Amino acid sequence: MSFDHLQDLIRAKNNPTVAGLDPRQEQIPPHLRKAAYDQYGRTLEGAAEAVWQFNKGLIDALADIVPAVKPQSAYYERLGWRGMEVMERTISYAQKKGLFVIADIKRGDIGSTAQAYSEGWLGKVTVDGKPLSAFCADCVTVNGYMGSDSIRPFLDTCRQEDKCLFVLVKTSNPGSGELQNLTADDRLVYQVMGDLTQHLGGGIEGNYGFTCAGAVVGATYPSEIKELRQRLKHTFFLVPGYGAQGGTAEDVQYAFNRQGHGAIVNASRSIMCAWQKTGGDGTDYQEASRRAALAMKDDICRYVTIV
Amino acid sequence: MSFDHLQDLIRAKNNPTVAGLDPRQEQIPPHLRKAAYDQYGRTLEGAAEAVWQFNKGLIDALADIVPAVKPQSAYYERLGWRGMEVMERTISYAQKKGLFVIADIKRGDIGSTAQAYSEGWLGKVTVDGKPLSAFCADCVTVNGYMGSDSIRPFLDTCRQEDKCLFVLVKTSNPGSGELQNLTADDRLVYQVMGDLTQHLGGGIEGNYGFTCAGAVVGATYPSEIKELRQRLKHTFFLVPGYGAQGGTAEDVQYAFNRQGHGAIVNASRSIMCAWQKTGGDGTDYQEASRRAALAMKDDICRYVTIV
Repeated sequence: MSFDHLQDLIRAKNNPTVAGLDPRQEQIPPHLRKAAYDQYGRTLEGAAEAVWQFNKGLIDALADIVPAVKPQSAYYERLGWRGMEVMERTISYAQKKGLFVIADIKRGDIGSTAQAYSEGWLGKVTVDGKPLSAFCADCVTVNGYMGSDSIRPFLDTCRQEDKCLFVLVKTSNPGSGELQNLTADDRLVYQVMGDLTQHLGGGIEGNYGFTCAGAVVGATYPSEIKELRQRLKHTFFLVPGYGAQGGTAEDVQYAFNRQGHGAIVNASRSIMCAWQKTGGDGTDYQEASRRAALAMKDDICRYVTIV
Repeated sequence: MSFDHLQDLIRAKNNPTVAGLDPRQEQIPPHLRKAAYDQYGRTLEGAAEAVWQFNKGLIDALADIVPAVKPQSAYYERLGWRGMEVMERTISYAQKKGLFVIADIKRGDIGSTAQAYSEGWLGKVTVDGKPLSAFCADCVTVNGYMGSDSIRPFLDTCRQEDKCLFVLVKTSNPGSGELQNLTADDRLVYQVMGDLTQHLGGGIEGNYGFTCAGAVVGATYPSEIKELRQRLKHTFFLVPGYGAQGGTAEDVQYAFNRQGHGAIVNASRSIMCAWQKTGGDGTDYQEASRRAALAMKDDICRYVTIV
């Protein structure tokens, strides 16, 4: 049970936060960009190299503080295959440093296509009888708009490979209610998605009582978090929206159960871009990120006690 | 208006079909696989090379018959960054052969993340002031579960770059109704998504009357197609589910308007894997695909007259 592993790491570090690795070029310290462009030119290769150096530095700086990192695929795909190569390297490097890696890919497709995604991101690909790994993350995010046939193939891989996933249930963005908060018979759409997630993941619960199918629940909607925590007792939550998007430690406390288990809170810009607020030239980015990550940990731990 | 370009190509070839390029290893003719493994080993590189050779052969064989191809990202991602490199090469090669390329990526995220996806897949990335292209497709598929903030950034890029997209509205899979057919107040969820798509795309219609925001509507639900065609007069439809999934030419006719415009029907396995049904050894795969594509065109044109 991969959420067992994540919860163990959270307990060991007494820190239920995951650091997003979503770098745009302008968020990378100038000295790293300059070195990369000097070596590879103002090319996608140069841009990807800058991302790689930044990620490596962030992972080195954060590995003893946070239990997990969450690279957001969009920021790698925007650099084409060279970005994807850095995504692969980033996942592998973070895992070597003992971090749990959530690949934020929000994929959603059906049948053999969903299976192909899950092979590439969580499982193995068989080439002429030989099993090979591609991105090989510990966990992914999944979009279930297409229904249970878009979630099941990922869960099959999770069960085979001892991995896990998060289905988008109630997202943190301002427009999330347009669909997710529609009333459908006696439930809201996000409740339908949440119930479906817990149902599909059901049957095998880990040491902490969670199935391998988690849910994304935004920090910006605390009353929905509270209600979903009650409703989905066996579902681990990934909570985006803390910090820059407006969610507070007081808001996210409701994502945790009484043992302080069952949730991890994401922060991307506030940790990754901490160097932009020190007044320095960016060469202090590692120390700035450490300080921001520690401050976030302390902030959440004022409201959440992890037993 | 990019759907103008697609509709022009459809008219010129009198063929409203798009060929999916979704190859799994076992669907690639043995001689291509052998050559690739001989050169690069039983590796992800070897597997990606086999996909590339197969795609190139299919594009060469189909370029004068079909107006468009649709590579499905999952089958490239499963081979890691080497697969993504082949996806880039495939898009570029198909465009050089005059084909319209729909990247079937079903991405869905918000704000700057959605912008990053749309830069990578449709637009340009700026590296130290220099605009560069990554995947550079003509069109993508998008999942709108997160609401309008997950669609708008893609539309911004579409308007800047004269490109277009398809939002998942009513998908072709058996489980699509679990969410999409829930009754939300006076509408079904897929109708809400359809209305949102037409609304967001609105304002700028091309020569054929379609906005840059199209909709995915599955061939397997003909009554929903008929109703959505009435409801969304300015929305171009991508229709999956013909052939292997059970949708027929009779079913898909309702996706088109009275001029026979406004829709393109996808076929993947039936064209791509046609060689598996000839009884041959796969060296005839190009001819087999041509025949299957021509048969599909004839089949649909029995019901649809494109003026």
